[in-house]
Amino acid sequence: MDNLGVVFLSEVVGTAILVLLGCGVVANVALARNKGFGGGFLMVTIGWGLAVFCGVIVAYNSGAHLNPAVTLGLVASGATEFGSGVPVTVLSVLVYIAGEMLGAILGAVVVWLAYKQHFDAEPDAGSKLAVFSTGPAIRSYGWNLVTEIIGTFVLVFVVIAFGRQGEAGGLAALGALPVALLVVVIGTSLGGPTGYAINPARDLGPRIAHFLLPIKGKGSSDWAYSWVPVVGPVIGGVLAGWASIVLLPILG
Amino acid sequence: MDNLGVVFLSEVVGTAILVLLGCGVVANVALARNKGFGGGFLMVTIGWGLAVFCGVIVAYNSGAHLNPAVTLGLVASGATEFGSGVPVTVLSVLVYIAGEMLGAILGAVVVWLAYKQHFDAEPDAGSKLAVFSTGPAIRSYGWNLVTEIIGTFVLVFVVIAFGRQGEAGGLAALGALPVALLVVVIGTSLGGPTGYAINPARDLGPRIAHFLLPIKGKGSSDWAYSWVPVVGPVIGGVLAGWASIVLLPILG
Amino acid sequence: MDNLGVVFLSEVVGTAILVLLGCGVVANVALARNKGFGGGFLMVTIGWGLAVFCGVIVAYNSGAHLNPAVTLGLVASGATEFGSGVPVTVLSVLVYIAGEMLGAILGAVVVWLAYKQHFDAEPDAGSKLAVFSTGPAIRSYGWNLVTEIIGTFVLVFVVIAFGRQGEAGGLAALGALPVALLVVVIGTSLGGPTGYAINPARDLGPRIAHFLLPIKGKGSSDWAYSWVPVVGPVIGGVLAGWASIVLLPILG
Amino acid sequence: MDNLGVVFLSEVVGTAILVLLGCGVVANVALARNKGFGGGFLMVTIGWGLAVFCGVIVAYNSGAHLNPAVTLGLVASGATEFGSGVPVTVLSVLVYIAGEMLGAILGAVVVWLAYKQHFDAEPDAGSKLAVFSTGPAIRSYGWNLVTEIIGTFVLVFVVIAFGRQGEAGGLAALGALPVALLVVVIGTSLGGPTGYAINPARDLGPRIAHFLLPIKGKGSSDWAYSWVPVVGPVIGGVLAGWASIVLLPILG
Repeated sequence: MDNLGVVFLSEVVGTAILVLLGCGVVANVALARNKGFGGGFLMVTIGWGLAVFCGVIVAYNSGAHLNPAVTLGLVASGATEFGSGVPVTVLSVLVYIAGEMLGAILGAVVVWLAYKQHFDAEPDAGSKLAVFSTGPAIRSYGWNLVTEIIGTFVLVFVVIAFGRQGEAGGLAALGALPVALLVVVIGTSLGGPTGYAINPARDLGPRIAHFLLPIKGKGSSDWAYSWVPVVGPVIGGVLAGWASIVLLPILG
Repeated sequence: MDNLGVVFLSEVVGTAILVLLGCGVVANVALARNKGFGGGFLMVTIGWGLAVFCGVIVAYNSGAHLNPAVTLGLVASGATEFGSGVPVTVLSVLVYIAGEMLGAILGAVVVWLAYKQHFDAEPDAGSKLAVFSTGPAIRSYGWNLVTEIIGTFVLVFVVIAFGRQGEAGGLAALGALPVALLVVVIGTSLGGPTGYAINPARDLGPRIAHFLLPIKGKGSSDWAYSWVPVVGPVIGGVLAGWASIVLLPILG
Repeated sequence: MDNLGVVFLSEVVGTAILVLLGCGVVANVALARNKGFGGGFLMVTIGWGLAVFCGVIVAYNSGAHLNPAVTLGLVASGATEFGSGVPVTVLSVLVYIAGEMLGAILGAVVVWLAYKQHFDAEPDAGSKLAVFSTGPAIRSYGWNLVTEIIGTFVLVFVVIAFGRQGEAGGLAALGALPVALLVVVIGTSLGGPTGYAINPARDLGPRIAHFLLPIKGKGSSDWAYSWVPVVGPVIGGVLAGWASIVLLPILG
Repeated sequence: MDNLGVVFLSEVVGTAILVLLGCGVVANVALARNKGFGGGFLMVTIGWGLAVFCGVIVAYNSGAHLNPAVTLGLVASGATEFGSGVPVTVLSVLVYIAGEMLGAILGAVVVWLAYKQHFDAEPDAGSKLAVFSTGPAIRSYGWNLVTEIIGTFVLVFVVIAFGRQGEAGGLAALGALPVALLVVVIGTSLGGPTGYAINPARDLGPRIAHFLLPIKGKGSSDWAYSWVPVVGPVIGGVLAGWASIVLLPILG
């Protein structure tokens, strides 16, 4: 299998595991009669952080982007090849994003299977959609966009700092742990207003799954909001890539 | 002592510590008058994750399966020897599973001793059984089986990925920590519907202990459900082993 | 760019990320209608700890003080150069502190942007100030000062111990993780009475931002208390630096 | 300063930090009007675990026992010298225990200072004692002793396993983190019935401080129970030391 085939498959599987475990914790907390029902926001942020941990390990051979905002942020940072040794080209970027999207859809389908009876037992359609995709606490497309931009900027900027300073700072020995902790803290600290998509694939892929799956009593897939957690993260990721160039003197 | 003797003893002690600390956190949260009573699902998942951490460290010399689904998943993945250097044979597989089962029973007995008075003080028989073995939030053998298959698949597949990618990804330096974090996230994210047995020994061993021990006011050991957390994890583990072969190009 | 320029920029960016993620978790927990509203004190302490984790990684090249109490504590410990290789002089100390203060102000501004609508929706002016700066649970300048001195003493003393014993104790491989865990535990264990500023820049910088920003319905910036989380941490940090000299036989 | 002097000072300072941060989290959760009041049992276990983390790092040069049950367990395991290179003699054992006791008393005094106003504001004398020392959820000296023996056995046995298997299992790179996680899980999983003293110094030292300090409205120091968290941990630690000899084939 050529390199791009490995990248595609790796991003599919890694993103599927990310979304399965990430959307899974929301299902546990939000859907009726679950053992983790009402488990709290901290549990959600820890679940998502460790979902990233597992996804990154599985997808190590493609550099484990699992997120188009990371892929595009690396491009904006002037990278000439991705962590996987694959050159940065229009084609390779598209392969990454396609793998991320497909993986996210697949992961969301498996969440539905794992929680099938709880989707059936849950009366609130809004809770069902919340398992799949983010929605704002206070709807205001402009400010929701700002929040997603800030959250994704922090994600991509600190991920780039991990790469630049990892050897010196001893991070290499921690493997996928730093990015998992980073995702936990973005959740605790910037996740309040919009539920921190910070990843177009993580939000749009499951929303497509929500739209297509025969979920009992499901309501709208809220397409009106769907562009915010796509556009916001892309802007945030690209800004972070550019910032890493400007701040090269401190990031090394 | 020959190798298989070491394996047996190591799996007994490691699984006993796993089950003592894992079932222990459920006892703390579920039984009346405990200081951790009502401590929440996140506490349960952290307790189980760190229980694995301790069990794995103690049983390092046998490769620390502590779980027949892991043993059988490694066989399905085509491994020719276990982490401990013991060749994969029918006999060695049986020794692993026997050690895991015995350890799980012993660990459950010690939980009962540590929480003796709280078992006596607890009026609800269901809470007592919950300390020992899992039960479904919504009973439906088929869907409960699906959930256990998915959870165990993630466990065994990611464990195999740890092994394959550990050197490159820096995981070796983290010792038993990655598998502990993996078990935390399976709990937070896939534990809602069935309480995530994901381990036939962890569920069946304590259920046998529940059946045999003179627990005050205990009710049924719910044998009708007992096959689900045995069969589901075995299927999930074997599927994960097979999947790791198919996905060898990405897992390396 | 010369070394002091790198130090300044590095401390600005690192402290901005620290304050953004640290004050951010308070916003999530304290401001109306957030998804993390009422998420609990543990979530706050984990958010602040991981905020330090991210800030330290980004600011690795300046030694990542992010806190005037750390800078002054290192001076008191008799250090002749900072981790960044910059000699300890009056000028370099001022550059550190200036960068920390500016970064803290900037981080607080971004928190306001990320949570703009929740500031608008929150009726209680006290909750708004709490996002920016600490305040005492029971007001008593003397005892509040004692608590801040103790908390900061632990912070700076253990940070110095990390540096002295890191190689032998294997801490080097953990990068920024130990200091993050230290900040978590200072929060859980010494944060009850005053909200653990333990950092003059973290408290005064956001208070200035609170004073200057056009926050809807904001109340007083509580300047009467503002000196406590500045003076207390400075005293605690300097005492810790001196203690590290006295305890050199055990710290090595 | 000779070796025993370093050991004494190191154990004093390390145990003081352990008890300050450990009893501190109980103060935060249990005393009226604290910001962490009612923060839950998980927060308590995390606080105690990270308290151990900090204490161990500071006291690295004496091997960081911080606990007479660990000191005596190592003796029972047949160790000929402590981690610090100090030979095991009656004198060195006494120096360790004396340092641990003194440190625990000092740490408890500082907790009182840090939470002075909250001790004054708290109406319940039982909550005040709970900050210092453990007490049983259901009083029964025999069963309380059993629980403390089991908890301390796990502590000391797994600590010995860390030492034996650390190199092979990659634990060395994690420094003090494994023992911190171990203490967290003993809390979550075995802490329900007695509040897990698992350390004679941690319980008796603060009880002495409670007895001596002029705490407003304090009640009994509950000396009737005080022997349980001393005798139980000593028995558990010694049994663990013996068990490590018996289980040498698996522990290596």
